[in-house]
Amino acid sequence: MNQTITLITGNLNKVRELSRLLNIELSNEKINLPEIQTTDVAEVAKVKAEAAYKIVKKPVLVDDTGLTIRAWGELPGALIRWFIDNVGNAGIVGMLGDNDRAAFAATALGYCDENGSRVFNGMVDGTIPEKPRGENGFGFDAIFIPKGSEKTFAEMTSDEKDSFSSRAIAAAKMRELLKN
Amino acid sequence: MNQTITLITGNLNKVRELSRLLNIELSNEKINLPEIQTTDVAEVAKVKAEAAYKIVKKPVLVDDTGLTIRAWGELPGALIRWFIDNVGNAGIVGMLGDNDRAAFAATALGYCDENGSRVFNGMVDGTIPEKPRGENGFGFDAIFIPKGSEKTFAEMTSDEKDSFSSRAIAAAKMRELLKN
Repeated sequence: MNQTITLITGNLNKVRELSRLLNIELSNEKINLPEIQTTDVAEVAKVKAEAAYKIVKKPVLVDDTGLTIRAWGELPGALIRWFIDNVGNAGIVGMLGDNDRAAFAATALGYCDENGSRVFNGMVDGTIPEKPRGENGFGFDAIFIPKGSEKTFAEMTSDEKDSFSSRAIAAAKMRELLKN
Repeated sequence: MNQTITLITGNLNKVRELSRLLNIELSNEKINLPEIQTTDVAEVAKVKAEAAYKIVKKPVLVDDTGLTIRAWGELPGALIRWFIDNVGNAGIVGMLGDNDRAAFAATALGYCDENGSRVFNGMVDGTIPEKPRGENGFGFDAIFIPKGSEKTFAEMTSDEKDSFSSRAIAAAKMRELLKN
């Protein structure tokens, strides 16, 4: 696979993380594509990658990453950005109240080229802290502590985060495809 | 307009309420159409009505009704069903904690026929009770008290609910279209 891959996002943090994790140079393009209403990141990534390919007509990649709080069933999952944009990380923690703090982060990398689409999934268990902590990262990084660490993603260096993150797990699966 | 209108839903409560409010007989069809990811009921209703018309090829109607809790910005809005399905009305009230209880309900009726699509909007202010109350109605009826009443929608008769509901306001606008 020698062709450049276009990451469909306006989020430069995602471009940076995925270029590092996939060990390739990604171009990026912000295209406003409707996302489907679901808590499932894999569904969002698949549909969006296929829609983006029809427009870009070159290999495209979509990253959809969600945070699921087990006490809330499937919520927010892929709907996390609505929570972050409307109540922020502190608001999410507030809504959780005294509920159990178990959670998981999930990343779906949707890839589409002339041969069709593939989705690579990564998932990591963890917990929600009492309040947001840390300044690094982006999105929900300040309210997710992956299993095996006591730090939130936002308290970690990039290397530390990559050793735990659902994005890194999904990207490792995709690297296998890139090799072949 | 002499043609039957097909309401795109599997929810018989919606069929019943809208037949009554529009004073016409509605047929209904459950079509699994992806809804777009947004808090805005008008966007969902428009896109879904247009997609449904392409399949049904007869006049179609879509009802998207949301509940927005002002302390949560635009949430849940059109995403309400994910909240109800995952944490239930009691869970939503629990997530609200000590926050201000102001809220509004919004209905968008998306209609589409061979002449294109129209959206009719209804909105009603209200508050969220301390816990779910009442057995009537459906959806979030047990956790919404419209301004001007002390009852939740689920504590009202159909007639009472119709005198307050965002669905009734949107339907009144649509009746004007049906007359012409």
